[in-house]
Amino acid sequence: MSHPRSATIELPGWVASVVGDVHAEGQSDRMEFAISLAERNVAEGTGGPFGAAIFDLDSGDLIAAGVNVVVAATMAIAHAEIVAIAMAGVATGHFDLANSSRAELVTTTEPCAMCLGAVPWSGVTSLVCGARDEDARAVGFDEGIKPTDWMADLDAAGISVTRDIQRSHAADVLADYARGGGVIYNGRGGMGD
Amino acid sequence: MSHPRSATIELPGWVASVVGDVHAEGQSDRMEFAISLAERNVAEGTGGPFGAAIFDLDSGDLIAAGVNVVVAATMAIAHAEIVAIAMAGVATGHFDLANSSRAELVTTTEPCAMCLGAVPWSGVTSLVCGARDEDARAVGFDEGIKPTDWMADLDAAGISVTRDIQRSHAADVLADYARGGGVIYNGRGGMGD
Repeated sequence: MSHPRSATIELPGWVASVVGDVHAEGQSDRMEFAISLAERNVAEGTGGPFGAAIFDLDSGDLIAAGVNVVVAATMAIAHAEIVAIAMAGVATGHFDLANSSRAELVTTTEPCAMCLGAVPWSGVTSLVCGARDEDARAVGFDEGIKPTDWMADLDAAGISVTRDIQRSHAADVLADYARGGGVIYNGRGGMGD
Repeated sequence: MSHPRSATIELPGWVASVVGDVHAEGQSDRMEFAISLAERNVAEGTGGPFGAAIFDLDSGDLIAAGVNVVVAATMAIAHAEIVAIAMAGVATGHFDLANSSRAELVTTTEPCAMCLGAVPWSGVTSLVCGARDEDARAVGFDEGIKPTDWMADLDAAGISVTRDIQRSHAADVLADYARGGGVIYNGRGGMGD
């Protein structure tokens, strides 16, 4: 077994064409941008139906975007939220977004157990979700095992949680993907969101 | 804000010199290897006192290694376990370790909430832990909010959990780091393990 010295999470090529000068003042507009990432990821065949975006809450500017690239990157961890958080670190040059801004993570589906655990480490102060866990599970995705009161837990950690923003549009992306025969990995299969 | 097209998790340079032909038959020996990574990471000043390693349970060969490089990589997600899982995906060319082997993740400290959530996605069938959550918390590290019965949850998902393997040695690494004035990030500071 050879041992690589690095692991690179690469965004699909089309992402560069949609992230320039993105600015969105409200949660609904920010969610629509994240949903557009999920839709395009499916349409381009570059990954699963999940998108995430991190915005600066003061300026409304996009800090970083992410889509699910688990299969293309051959990395179980490359869920949309993890990718966005990793990209935000590279973009800002610091592992903690709270170091430079008040930031919001917008995700098209409520985060799986892994991505939920990453939220407090990222330094965002706000989490905004589109589709719910049950919308993902309804089409066969696995969200993992999350603490029962995860929203209250984040709130206690100083991170506000807003859900059901454009929920039906976000859930439609999941359902369309499943109807279109998109591969759905479960449990240990690692795709999740 | 410029938008990077990729985010690279790079292992510290010294790792290449210690991962060649590593083979360990038992959990104790595998843990000692992971602890050696954590110790060296601190000694070299390349990151926090956390190490992880993924072994092939049938051959005893090392598949991938990881150390905490949150600060150097400017990535909140770059905990030792996440790094090891990402490297394993690159090494095997597949996001799911179950695709090619029965694999075991050995980690010097019980995984934080994020890394715990990543375990089922990785495809390992065994998780082996050294120090406990409380050993990490005792010196100021934050493990995040984990499901109360996380060991039973993993077991139900077909992943065995073994803990307290070389616990005192693993805990000593944490305590030595803290005593040596190593930076300890808490809560939203993102270092965790």
